[in-house]
Amino acid sequence: MFQLNAWYAAAWSHEVSARGPLARTVCGQKLALWRKSDGSAAAVRDACWHRGLPLSMGQVDGDSIVCRYHGLAFDSGGRCTRMPSQDRISPSACVRSYPTLERHRLTWVWPGDVARADPALVPDLHWNTDPGWEGDGATLFARCDYRLIIDNLMDLTHETFVHSTSIGHRAIAETPATTTHDDKTVTVTRWMLDIDAPPFWRTLLGRPGNVDRWQIIRFEAPCTIVLDVGVALAGTGAPAGDRSQGVNGRVLNTVTPETSSTCMYFWTLLRSFRLRDQTLTTQMRDANARIFEEDRAVVEAQQRTLEEMPDAIHNLNIDAGPVWARRAIERMVAAERDSTHGLMWRGAARKPAK
Amino acid sequence: MFQLNAWYAAAWSHEVSARGPLARTVCGQKLALWRKSDGSAAAVRDACWHRGLPLSMGQVDGDSIVCRYHGLAFDSGGRCTRMPSQDRISPSACVRSYPTLERHRLTWVWPGDVARADPALVPDLHWNTDPGWEGDGATLFARCDYRLIIDNLMDLTHETFVHSTSIGHRAIAETPATTTHDDKTVTVTRWMLDIDAPPFWRTLLGRPGNVDRWQIIRFEAPCTIVLDVGVALAGTGAPAGDRSQGVNGRVLNTVTPETSSTCMYFWTLLRSFRLRDQTLTTQMRDANARIFEEDRAVVEAQQRTLEEMPDAIHNLNIDAGPVWARRAIERMVAAERDSTHGLMWRGAARKPAK
Amino acid sequence: MFQLNAWYAAAWSHEVSARGPLARTVCGQKLALWRKSDGSAAAVRDACWHRGLPLSMGQVDGDSIVCRYHGLAFDSGGRCTRMPSQDRISPSACVRSYPTLERHRLTWVWPGDVARADPALVPDLHWNTDPGWEGDGATLFARCDYRLIIDNLMDLTHETFVHSTSIGHRAIAETPATTTHDDKTVTVTRWMLDIDAPPFWRTLLGRPGNVDRWQIIRFEAPCTIVLDVGVALAGTGAPAGDRSQGVNGRVLNTVTPETSSTCMYFWTLLRSFRLRDQTLTTQMRDANARIFEEDRAVVEAQQRTLEEMPDAIHNLNIDAGPVWARRAIERMVAAERDSTHGLMWRGAARKPAK
Repeated sequence: MFQLNAWYAAAWSHEVSARGPLARTVCGQKLALWRKSDGSAAAVRDACWHRGLPLSMGQVDGDSIVCRYHGLAFDSGGRCTRMPSQDRISPSACVRSYPTLERHRLTWVWPGDVARADPALVPDLHWNTDPGWEGDGATLFARCDYRLIIDNLMDLTHETFVHSTSIGHRAIAETPATTTHDDKTVTVTRWMLDIDAPPFWRTLLGRPGNVDRWQIIRFEAPCTIVLDVGVALAGTGAPAGDRSQGVNGRVLNTVTPETSSTCMYFWTLLRSFRLRDQTLTTQMRDANARIFEEDRAVVEAQQRTLEEMPDAIHNLNIDAGPVWARRAIERMVAAERDSTHGLMWRGAARKPAK
Repeated sequence: MFQLNAWYAAAWSHEVSARGPLARTVCGQKLALWRKSDGSAAAVRDACWHRGLPLSMGQVDGDSIVCRYHGLAFDSGGRCTRMPSQDRISPSACVRSYPTLERHRLTWVWPGDVARADPALVPDLHWNTDPGWEGDGATLFARCDYRLIIDNLMDLTHETFVHSTSIGHRAIAETPATTTHDDKTVTVTRWMLDIDAPPFWRTLLGRPGNVDRWQIIRFEAPCTIVLDVGVALAGTGAPAGDRSQGVNGRVLNTVTPETSSTCMYFWTLLRSFRLRDQTLTTQMRDANARIFEEDRAVVEAQQRTLEEMPDAIHNLNIDAGPVWARRAIERMVAAERDSTHGLMWRGAARKPAK
Repeated sequence: MFQLNAWYAAAWSHEVSARGPLARTVCGQKLALWRKSDGSAAAVRDACWHRGLPLSMGQVDGDSIVCRYHGLAFDSGGRCTRMPSQDRISPSACVRSYPTLERHRLTWVWPGDVARADPALVPDLHWNTDPGWEGDGATLFARCDYRLIIDNLMDLTHETFVHSTSIGHRAIAETPATTTHDDKTVTVTRWMLDIDAPPFWRTLLGRPGNVDRWQIIRFEAPCTIVLDVGVALAGTGAPAGDRSQGVNGRVLNTVTPETSSTCMYFWTLLRSFRLRDQTLTTQMRDANARIFEEDRAVVEAQQRTLEEMPDAIHNLNIDAGPVWARRAIERMVAAERDSTHGLMWRGAARKPAK
């Protein structure tokens, strides 16, 4: 169902703290996250080895997390380092720990095989910390299969119908897109030339006249999508690469499955113009949050249909993006399933990792 | 569980509109209903062929219903007539449509075999539009098996205990009823002679003195019940047919199963006296709605018991009406199950209906 | 799962009334309780024989409970004594009745074999009516397996971590306890000598200086625990039996399983000093209720973990009390299961009890 050998965003970095643990669910696994004294994040299974109480109800003490019930302490490797009323600590007393790292303003965890947790595999959302880009974002907790969000972002013709009062435009549904893909990425490109700008973009551009509008969507399996979107005055060369007469945004999206029917959706809306304008940052973030609430109503209703009729999906021409993205996910899940058989066999002969 | 080859009330006619679709569930099937430009109603399965979004979240456009997600349009036959970004429409793109018709102020749908949807089979609730009768009603959405409402209406001895402050009277439980039946209908008749009128009827009669009270209950399978109820001054000939010294009401009831544990109950309370008195109409409707709320508390509590103990039902002498009504339903469901085997076999060799 | 042949507290005596029935669930069985004219309590299965309506929705009429739906009356033996519209009462019309008795301010029911309902088996909570003790209590309805409450009470080291601002003290976790047991009882004794008193006890003692603190926990299977707790000025002989320089409390607890994941927890906090001080009674009851709310947060969170991972429990040295208590429960449930096979076989040849 989920690819386990991947980095998933579990929280914004500022949400993971030394002041107290945070409960999050990633790929069906409940986690307690906290921050250690060296500033790095830690994540362990959110159930005390002793009596099952969620460790996220406890406290952070130095580099350890301490259970609220009987004070057992666990280090970031999941090893118990303190037990009440006894000096000898059972060596079997441990909880599963997860590799974590900090990048692009997010805390990432790796729910799969520890040995394969390569930091180079974190998806590229570098714009989040690039001084040439400015913006803000939020988390949307949605009651749906994370792939419904992927579908939604990979085909933006829905903007015409779902977001008709803000970023929607008939041109989107009327203009064909080009889709390319390799093993792990899918790119959908749509250029709408010489059209009237929709309200959201007209305001940002701040100039009259028709525009060339672009939407370049890049999916990276299993769950990250970068949108390169913008408008420039029509005929000023934007399709050929000159965006100087326009405004450019990036919508960075990474969607973390919690369970088969819920997910966390971390997004930021960035721009490369009017960088110091905090009011604009807030306006754009709030406008985008309202737009995403329109999407939420759609994907959560879809989820309810699909729980009753799992096969109620058909594809149109516009679905090349979603189709290739789902295929990439399926391929990686299948490959992992095959290799996991081997892994489990090897694991059976080993001691617990810690 | 349900008889599918029958007309079921899905909504009051005024609820089905050209301004936007209405979501309803009938016999386990989710429907989107709307009104076409010729004034007729349309009903299709409430899930877009493309991505499963409920069509009831969309819009009505001329005679079609348009999906909110990507703008696919479907006609009242369930055929897709518009797709985004493509001119050729896949001939397989259709959703199931349902026969509908308008009668007795209600919109009826036929969830079974289209070929058998005979308008002559709509249950008789003609008093709803008869100028000799006046009144109003409402819909009660109840969390119970629809047959618990049928049971409730087919044995009115419960009025003595459940509605003791309004229409209840010890005479109801003390007076035996006569029950007759044929294949599709059951009639329960109770005459209570020379009794004191209960408060509800005393007020309507507006005269002192003992009364002859009648309750004539007619069930028509699978889910329609007409109550002929009233009181006349005692000894003035009502049992023999002269109701001139009394007041007469009709309670029209049709109960549509939504799922195995929920239903929609459409009712009207009509009278053949003081026809222009709108205040009385409102008072009677509100009084009846309060009475039906007392019933709701009972049937919903019963439902919770029966979900744990499905066989926790025994019958008394008073249950002749409910017993014969349930038998009629069971007989029709069984007959349909037998004939459906044939139908499904035939269906397998056919194209989709539209 | 539950031992059925035992007395379980179903309600405080004052909650069982002749004015109307009370709904309670004991060991998976829904009950309607009421009080008869002779002052004794009665309990029957909470579903009318006729149509399944909960009898607890009905009324008390003399010594009988009357169904709200059709007026069937049942006596405390569960036998139907009145039916609507018929004189002859079906002899099979009965609901299961349960032995009840009143003791220690509680109404107890016996959900198992009637023949074994020996009043001598009611657990000893006599302090509740002993004039030498004063106090008050409450009921806590908790969404957890009742054994999680037993665990909680049988190992008080958790006070250090869960109740750190009131009764917690590092000494509890640091001081080993002694555990003894026989077939049906487990006793855990902990003496903490010459320690600083925690806030709760310091206030009650009303004197400065270190204290000797004791916690003597006595479990009686399946679900009753008496805590003998207190502090005395250090070195004044409390461990040897002289508690004259201290204050002494009893926390009486009996936990009744409702279902496998919910329970009712009846508790009283009593003291043997300042007996006439009603303000102190209220203060102590409220303080204890706040403490138990801290426990509730823990046990309900544990329950959610254990529903996903039923085996997520390991034991430490401190768990001798919980372990022996669970073993006593398991032994009695197993013994009952064996004897029930015989009972069911005998029962098959008998008429219904009433």
